[in-house]
Amino acid sequence: MTILIKNATVLDLKKFAAVENDILIEGNKISKIGVDIEVNEKENLKIIDGSNKVALPGLINGHTHVAMTLFRGAADDLPLMDWLNNVIWPSESRLTGEDVYWGSLLGIVEMIKSGTTTFCDMYFFMDEVAHAVEQSGIRAILSRGMVAIDPANGEKGLKESVDFIEKWQGKANGRITTALAPHAPYTCPPEFLKDVIWEAKRLNVPINIHISETLDEISIIKERYGTTPVRHLESLGLFEVKTIGAHLVYVDDEEIQILKRYQVGAIHNPQSNMKLASGIAPVAKMLEAGVLVGLGTDGAASNNDLDMIEELRTASYLQKVSSMNPEALNAKTSIAMATSLGARALGLTEVGLLQEGYKADIILLNTNETNFYPRHNIFNLIAYSAKGADVDTVIVDGEVIMEKRQLTRLDEEKIKFEANKRGLKLVAG
Amino acid sequence: MTILIKNATVLDLKKFAAVENDILIEGNKISKIGVDIEVNEKENLKIIDGSNKVALPGLINGHTHVAMTLFRGAADDLPLMDWLNNVIWPSESRLTGEDVYWGSLLGIVEMIKSGTTTFCDMYFFMDEVAHAVEQSGIRAILSRGMVAIDPANGEKGLKESVDFIEKWQGKANGRITTALAPHAPYTCPPEFLKDVIWEAKRLNVPINIHISETLDEISIIKERYGTTPVRHLESLGLFEVKTIGAHLVYVDDEEIQILKRYQVGAIHNPQSNMKLASGIAPVAKMLEAGVLVGLGTDGAASNNDLDMIEELRTASYLQKVSSMNPEALNAKTSIAMATSLGARALGLTEVGLLQEGYKADIILLNTNETNFYPRHNIFNLIAYSAKGADVDTVIVDGEVIMEKRQLTRLDEEKIKFEANKRGLKLVAG
Repeated sequence: MTILIKNATVLDLKKFAAVENDILIEGNKISKIGVDIEVNEKENLKIIDGSNKVALPGLINGHTHVAMTLFRGAADDLPLMDWLNNVIWPSESRLTGEDVYWGSLLGIVEMIKSGTTTFCDMYFFMDEVAHAVEQSGIRAILSRGMVAIDPANGEKGLKESVDFIEKWQGKANGRITTALAPHAPYTCPPEFLKDVIWEAKRLNVPINIHISETLDEISIIKERYGTTPVRHLESLGLFEVKTIGAHLVYVDDEEIQILKRYQVGAIHNPQSNMKLASGIAPVAKMLEAGVLVGLGTDGAASNNDLDMIEELRTASYLQKVSSMNPEALNAKTSIAMATSLGARALGLTEVGLLQEGYKADIILLNTNETNFYPRHNIFNLIAYSAKGADVDTVIVDGEVIMEKRQLTRLDEEKIKFEANKRGLKLVAG
Repeated sequence: MTILIKNATVLDLKKFAAVENDILIEGNKISKIGVDIEVNEKENLKIIDGSNKVALPGLINGHTHVAMTLFRGAADDLPLMDWLNNVIWPSESRLTGEDVYWGSLLGIVEMIKSGTTTFCDMYFFMDEVAHAVEQSGIRAILSRGMVAIDPANGEKGLKESVDFIEKWQGKANGRITTALAPHAPYTCPPEFLKDVIWEAKRLNVPINIHISETLDEISIIKERYGTTPVRHLESLGLFEVKTIGAHLVYVDDEEIQILKRYQVGAIHNPQSNMKLASGIAPVAKMLEAGVLVGLGTDGAASNNDLDMIEELRTASYLQKVSSMNPEALNAKTSIAMATSLGARALGLTEVGLLQEGYKADIILLNTNETNFYPRHNIFNLIAYSAKGADVDTVIVDGEVIMEKRQLTRLDEEKIKFEANKRGLKLVAG
């Protein structure tokens, strides 16, 4: 299939320019961006009218537990341990693979409809998540979360992870890649982490891990190892493997240098960190130091949505107020964190920019709503007034998976029905 | 016209209950809420299907400069004084009444489409704002902003304000009420404020004023009067008049008690305070003390939208993270700040609740999108995952002004065209 998007306002996130252009997609790649592109082969050509629309790279949700949409709003405004002990963990203990499948689809629908084309996930029953990704047409880095407080659990998790990686790495035309996901330094002892590092090197996959999310974690690591989470992980050699580190709320200047040196992808999750009262990550500082900072929603149970446009806005505003500097984390950088920079944070090389040769992961924003007027500055409008509902068309890997807000591959009604039924049952017990 | 909404999930914000019910609207009032309401008079009866919809009181935007939508995104990420000196003030100096009229309509369309039914405004050319309110069908408290650093300006402003109040108070079937709006304690000297207080008592209108928005303001007031803004205004007797105070970012415990004692409406503007790096208001503390806290967007130039659902979510998350307490400002209280409590903050007595005898200011939210699944808890879903675009129907003063997202009174395309043209011209100079 060849797709030609005509006369869209195309965002160039390298030069930070917006130019009216056509985009030609051949196979799963962007083959040309330019004015009045002519296509000889008219068969199998799909033309999309891009006028009054902005084309930007699909958004990249760097940290999720996508099936947790099942628990969205089940209990909010609770202290973290009450929430986990009384709601989330009992519900999760009842989870089946089928539940995870439908919960993942619900989250994927929500992400597609708000412009996300790639997400990085850590959860259980990952075969089911992979099936959902395969069917939906979205791109994902998938990893089975491993907790190794009980060594037997760790061993089981690592074995399942390796099986999962061997089964799914590169599948769905490369839309699915995988990672190893030790949950966090406080739930995975050093010996286990060393095994994980060894396997990650052997399998050539990144490590996806929560780091320095709460003050409690900082205390635990200090007590156990006499140091901080980032230093602890560095000393274990974990960062020798490409690492995707979620949260990094509590990091000092020296730790920021460590993250920079190893090119750790630091995934900031502002709404989750705010809602769970975890704290405020020093994102402006990390960016200034040259850390690869991406952006994530975390699970919908602690967000409570998977809307990356809302997330990038919150990221910007939170940095401004926490640093008392209105210039902090500007519109362009916020957009980059959700696209080009977010891709680099995850170690993805061919997504995150609209550029010839890159994978055709493209979204078109409708600019008809009042929040897009006046047209002073398209970057400011996208960062500070656009909405998820403005996303009109979503293309992933050269395939249109949403057009005029209609999903082309998935049965949205059935997914809502199944996920609703299962979510309610899981929480009721 | 009689309107019957059938089988909606009706939110009771006094008992915080959600019950499937019908709502009968006769004239501009809610005349009955109950199961299977029968209407004898079938003529002039409009029936609205409320199934799969949530009915809640229209949202109340307690602080705006609505025509500033003209400057949305014109310049962002700037230090406050650069932004004012180089962009906003030069542009505002070129404003005409017609510009304000179209800019107000643009903002009103945006508010209606995201569920706001009442807003409290402070700006210039208020006759034009009033015309826009009258035509649009929305409800508003309107006030002409007065700056009195130059006494002649103050005098002119007060005269225009009095004329405006005499002309518009109670107009549009009571949808328009008015206030006196001295801009702030640092831009209005004590003698001028005393004149304003005297006029407010004479005319029986509230005072709408910015208070304690920035640390700069705190320094100025300290230097000039040796005290804080709230104490300064109290000592002038300003709070003897019903006061709507915007921002109140910097208030200590004793000032919170003053606000409580005088029933000052404290309008919190979290996104503006974050974006301009003004600071974080102690909202959780104010609520605990019993202050009437409402919620506002401020102008779209510093927000950058007029979306009260996004605003109430941000308010909650910001309090949680700034107080490091996930229980702070819970879902129900956040919704109340945008509705029932917000109405009380503004001194409005018959809006903000769905209750027999109250004015029929009602919105219906569509619950079809994925962000409304699963249906664990409707309050959590509204506060933490609903979107402005989920607003389906808007009724103000017993009249449907939006149905299935189509405005019934306004020509949205013309408004966007005019506001865009004027906004671009004003900023270009």
